[in-house]
Amino acid sequence: MAEQSRLDAVITLAQHRGFVFPSGDIYGGTRSAWDYGPLGVELKENLKREWWNRFVRGRGDMVGLDSAVILPTAVWQASGHVKVFSDPLTESLVSHKRYRADHLFEAYEAEHGHPPENGLADIPDPENPKVIGQWSEIKQFSGLMKTYLGVVDDESGLHYLRPETAQGIFTEFAAVLQTARKKPPFGIGQIGKAFRNEITPGNFIFRTREFEQMEIEFFVEPGTDEQWQEAWMELCWEWFIDLGMTPENIRWFEHPKDKLAHYSKRTVDIEYKFGFTGSEWGELMGVANRTDYDLRVHMEASGKDLSYFDQTKNERYVPFVIEPSFGLTRAMMAFLVDAYHSEEVPNAKGGVDTRTVLRLDPRLAPVKVAVLPLSRNEALSPLARGLADDLRKRWNVDFDDSGAIGRRYRRQDEIGTPFCVTVDFDSLEDNAVTVRDRDTMQQERVPLDGLRDYLSPRLKEF
Amino acid sequence: MAEQSRLDAVITLAQHRGFVFPSGDIYGGTRSAWDYGPLGVELKENLKREWWNRFVRGRGDMVGLDSAVILPTAVWQASGHVKVFSDPLTESLVSHKRYRADHLFEAYEAEHGHPPENGLADIPDPENPKVIGQWSEIKQFSGLMKTYLGVVDDESGLHYLRPETAQGIFTEFAAVLQTARKKPPFGIGQIGKAFRNEITPGNFIFRTREFEQMEIEFFVEPGTDEQWQEAWMELCWEWFIDLGMTPENIRWFEHPKDKLAHYSKRTVDIEYKFGFTGSEWGELMGVANRTDYDLRVHMEASGKDLSYFDQTKNERYVPFVIEPSFGLTRAMMAFLVDAYHSEEVPNAKGGVDTRTVLRLDPRLAPVKVAVLPLSRNEALSPLARGLADDLRKRWNVDFDDSGAIGRRYRRQDEIGTPFCVTVDFDSLEDNAVTVRDRDTMQQERVPLDGLRDYLSPRLKEF
Repeated sequence: MAEQSRLDAVITLAQHRGFVFPSGDIYGGTRSAWDYGPLGVELKENLKREWWNRFVRGRGDMVGLDSAVILPTAVWQASGHVKVFSDPLTESLVSHKRYRADHLFEAYEAEHGHPPENGLADIPDPENPKVIGQWSEIKQFSGLMKTYLGVVDDESGLHYLRPETAQGIFTEFAAVLQTARKKPPFGIGQIGKAFRNEITPGNFIFRTREFEQMEIEFFVEPGTDEQWQEAWMELCWEWFIDLGMTPENIRWFEHPKDKLAHYSKRTVDIEYKFGFTGSEWGELMGVANRTDYDLRVHMEASGKDLSYFDQTKNERYVPFVIEPSFGLTRAMMAFLVDAYHSEEVPNAKGGVDTRTVLRLDPRLAPVKVAVLPLSRNEALSPLARGLADDLRKRWNVDFDDSGAIGRRYRRQDEIGTPFCVTVDFDSLEDNAVTVRDRDTMQQERVPLDGLRDYLSPRLKEF
Repeated sequence: MAEQSRLDAVITLAQHRGFVFPSGDIYGGTRSAWDYGPLGVELKENLKREWWNRFVRGRGDMVGLDSAVILPTAVWQASGHVKVFSDPLTESLVSHKRYRADHLFEAYEAEHGHPPENGLADIPDPENPKVIGQWSEIKQFSGLMKTYLGVVDDESGLHYLRPETAQGIFTEFAAVLQTARKKPPFGIGQIGKAFRNEITPGNFIFRTREFEQMEIEFFVEPGTDEQWQEAWMELCWEWFIDLGMTPENIRWFEHPKDKLAHYSKRTVDIEYKFGFTGSEWGELMGVANRTDYDLRVHMEASGKDLSYFDQTKNERYVPFVIEPSFGLTRAMMAFLVDAYHSEEVPNAKGGVDTRTVLRLDPRLAPVKVAVLPLSRNEALSPLARGLADDLRKRWNVDFDDSGAIGRRYRRQDEIGTPFCVTVDFDSLEDNAVTVRDRDTMQQERVPLDGLRDYLSPRLKEF
């Protein structure tokens, strides 16, 4: 299957089955925001929990934090976001559409093999390729979203929605150090929403104005930063692989030195082969060496001491920071694309059927178990409903008593449910059920009173 | 202990031990926003998970959703928020401070036993009680927070941050109905941030401009709405009690008919006895009968059909909606206050010590187990660290090898850790540890290989 059609198939499935809906669709929607439906919210929560358990709860050198979206404006002034978090924007004098100038330059270079010699004067209008150089002056356009707090909409109430969760961690560094009895090397993890006024949102949930990040700021002694960056790169890569990502579909991307963000000494991304039109690969996460940039600017601007005194070495230093930063919804999209398979399987009539199956790791699967009474029946239904209610105390469970059993299996395959439990007439006699495995499609008879112990390890519970 | 000092003690503990920090404190902070520290984020996540497991995953008639914070502006126009989500504001002509006029009227009535006959003309300036009636005209002040999307800050880009998660549920009602194979009575649950431009934020994390809600919109057949409201009231009350809330500290508050929100037929709140100055009780959550108001206004404004066709009855109707709406951070604050105890306990010298203990339900406790080597020692430390790492695969675990064991127990009591596991020199011989119970302070010797099975049911795991 061609990559592009695979991506399209996943996007269609995600919308049809309730993973993701276009936000505000009844009002014509918006290309830039998405709502996560019943299956999407479970998948997203499972991803969050796996991340948190691995990187925060699971490590003795990490703690968690949840800082506010709207921080004091002084934070964004000190961090440099108010000044430099912007894109160069130009407007076509013909179509009056706005474009990012750097994107226009890159497109020119990709076509001609060299950058435009005369800047915008060489650049054609994408909508009217014969019109060359008809562009307004380049203006810097802030990616920060504004809001106003208090009773009047003036500069005194101007605040920004955070474009990254990181700064909330830096501003609480001293408070965490003091209350959590940690010392470098140690880190603070946070999951939360961030907001950026993207000029060109798109590619489904890949680039949106409102998105969720999972970020770690890991504080280390200067001089140990390069090896810690390598260590974190490995941990992040392993996290994706452990959760079932196909190794061939991810790769490292080293940011060129001349294109690093203003705070970074080195940044390396993990990219996933989404199969976008134009550029196949898209950023999943990045590991940046932010040096002591952020703690230093906040020390200078706030006048507060954010250094650390190492008692064993009798030395004071401002820690360097290694930042593994994950896009949650991008990771979700990548796991969906990676799990998507369309395959031919033998049917009962000796022919072949095509089945769509999401081979999601059981820890990520939004529905863990589907309970299916073989038919709608006065005896089977109560037993099956009781079983579903019992399993619900522990797992997210689907109950489906509609139509042919084969079609119901397919429906569960399509949303990645690892196990279907069928309650049939024999169940009334032998107190057992048939458990069907999503991937192998093998069926096994399991006693009701042993069902949980059968499922738990197969769902990779610890 | 007087109620007020108990509340103050909890607020002090919460800040000293890393539950809650004033947001942006290094920049002088803000009274209106808070960051949740290492313990706070765990407590908050535990609360979310208990809510989600009980009300969403745990029920066959519920599904989850996670809609965007910034919805199309048309949503807030249709819902009535742009027009009516506002407070009456007046400004003192002397101090130029702004006040909510309805609050001034209520204070007047509380003092005089009757409302002011001449409106603001009778009202004294709270800062200058001898100055009467010096007020600007009352203006309606919107509680919606604005932001601008796109490349220019004008009306075309004007959007609002959601003041409630509910509208994201109403606008996705039809999409969920179609994809999740549910039919009324069924509900959609959502946890997420909401933003309100509060004029008077305060009382710690009780009233903030940025807060988290846990909301359910439960769709029912008209005519069954009153009994469903009663049913949900009971379920909500039970949720608090089951998680250990003292029954005497919560009560029902029935909203007077003439003060109901514009969409409500009946609203009943659960209030907690926080012990605030002025008013002791504060709202924890509310169960509102929103009737078919929201679905109808969205039908009219969008032109989309949001009715439901009941095939068994051959009847079409617009569902009525019962809305149990919880304030997450308020619930967290209430559980903290409720769990706080200061008590005298016998000490080793035959006297008494005072200990502070958070008697949090183990499901809510931010740290489940603390591993404490009896002393810092080459043999004990590796064993204790290994044990902590092993338990971390499952639970949030603290490791503490600093100072006297008694002091370390007290520190864990203060943050509500249900179990302390002490590794001593005997452990090296008998492969067992001493488990101390937070509430009874009883100690029990437990073999290492049976520790998990010992702890799991006592942490109320299912």
